[in-house]
Amino acid sequence: MPIPRLIDTTRLEAALQAFADARDWNRFHTPKNLALALTGEVGELVEIFQWLGEDESRRVMDNPATAQAVRDEVADVLMYLVRLSSVLGIDLDAAVADKLAANARKYPAPPSPPSVSPPAVG
Amino acid sequence: MPIPRLIDTTRLEAALQAFADARDWNRFHTPKNLALALTGEVGELVEIFQWLGEDESRRVMDNPATAQAVRDEVADVLMYLVRLSSVLGIDLDAAVADKLAANARKYPAPPSPPSVSPPAVG
Amino acid sequence: MPIPRLIDTTRLEAALQAFADARDWNRFHTPKNLALALTGEVGELVEIFQWLGEDESRRVMDNPATAQAVRDEVADVLMYLVRLSSVLGIDLDAAVADKLAANARKYPAPPSPPSVSPPAVG
Amino acid sequence: MPIPRLIDTTRLEAALQAFADARDWNRFHTPKNLALALTGEVGELVEIFQWLGEDESRRVMDNPATAQAVRDEVADVLMYLVRLSSVLGIDLDAAVADKLAANARKYPAPPSPPSVSPPAVG
Repeated sequence: MPIPRLIDTTRLEAALQAFADARDWNRFHTPKNLALALTGEVGELVEIFQWLGEDESRRVMDNPATAQAVRDEVADVLMYLVRLSSVLGIDLDAAVADKLAANARKYPAPPSPPSVSPPAVG
Repeated sequence: MPIPRLIDTTRLEAALQAFADARDWNRFHTPKNLALALTGEVGELVEIFQWLGEDESRRVMDNPATAQAVRDEVADVLMYLVRLSSVLGIDLDAAVADKLAANARKYPAPPSPPSVSPPAVG
Repeated sequence: MPIPRLIDTTRLEAALQAFADARDWNRFHTPKNLALALTGEVGELVEIFQWLGEDESRRVMDNPATAQAVRDEVADVLMYLVRLSSVLGIDLDAAVADKLAANARKYPAPPSPPSVSPPAVG
Repeated sequence: MPIPRLIDTTRLEAALQAFADARDWNRFHTPKNLALALTGEVGELVEIFQWLGEDESRRVMDNPATAQAVRDEVADVLMYLVRLSSVLGIDLDAAVADKLAANARKYPAPPSPPSVSPPAVG
């Protein structure tokens, strides 16, 4: 039985490949260029939060203008990340499963707290 | 009939939520903190390429050491991006579908080239 | 009478040039590579703050370990920025003077508040 | 005799302080906010290079439009870096001198090549 995927980017990878093919843009999609583009989009994303306090930034999705900006920039970052992985032949699902497992070993969860209900007496 | 998802992050979001819950780390996962963490990981990713030429960077996955580094950092960037989206309640699939459509309108693909077979003469 | 410089990076530029010359590293210092390196260092700088609250981050220089980390990363970011400017032949002082002036026009300071002492009556 | 400064940011720090004072913006200039703003500007800077080849990016200052964009973004990055250092009380000149010295120890320059003229015989 196959292990369920943590993430499935198959269709997005295909859509991005088709987008680049249709415009003859593959030649621009070198790993270094995609790394720079990813950085540019991360800059646009974090900028939305730069003058907001912690409370205001939690409410950024309540304001239609900032909500749309966040959605757009998150999408842009994701697309460049998926495109870079695709160009390099990286299996994102496997990469993320491995890293999550490594993180769990590096930062083990503390043991479960005792149950709330006290033990029976007698 | 439902439109197929471009991307499915359901299980990854759940895994990241469980990871944070088990360690009582949700309190650290504010939007601004996640934006800073995302930036840190993007830095670690692009650093791998900083002294490589274009050709060398295309071959980065041929060297086991750099290949693993790239996989790890791509995974880290993805996890913080998905976690940020999750904390803000963003539907990543909808966001990416919208942005891809907007990009297609902003950068229309040129018309298809004429067919290879030349027109009939006479 | 010459306008005083806002910033003088002359000696730092010379030191960075000599450092690269002595190691035959100029060939790595292309604008794109320096842009990637700058990004990597910014990532290392912002990471220091990623799990700190606003108050804790104001006190980051009180802890010798984090203080040294911040100094090191700020220095790294500065060195790559100055190196990039140097390689591109940018006069940083002129660039900053121009941008500060443009910002002052874009965001004019409000007029001075009225003096504290109330106007004389009668 | 004082050691000459590698970098002098005194007037720029004062100008940025005055700019913030005049607009009552100091309250926005927390370390985390400035880290996010710095990231945003680095994004705008590296974006200029993202679709350029190595040769094109070396010539970016030959085109008046891209030259001005690079100058503006380099200035923005510098201003946020200097402002962050200022807010944290960091002596940028000392920080850079220390890091340059540490780098020289970590990456010692190879010994000088033999002098061109051969040693005297006998």
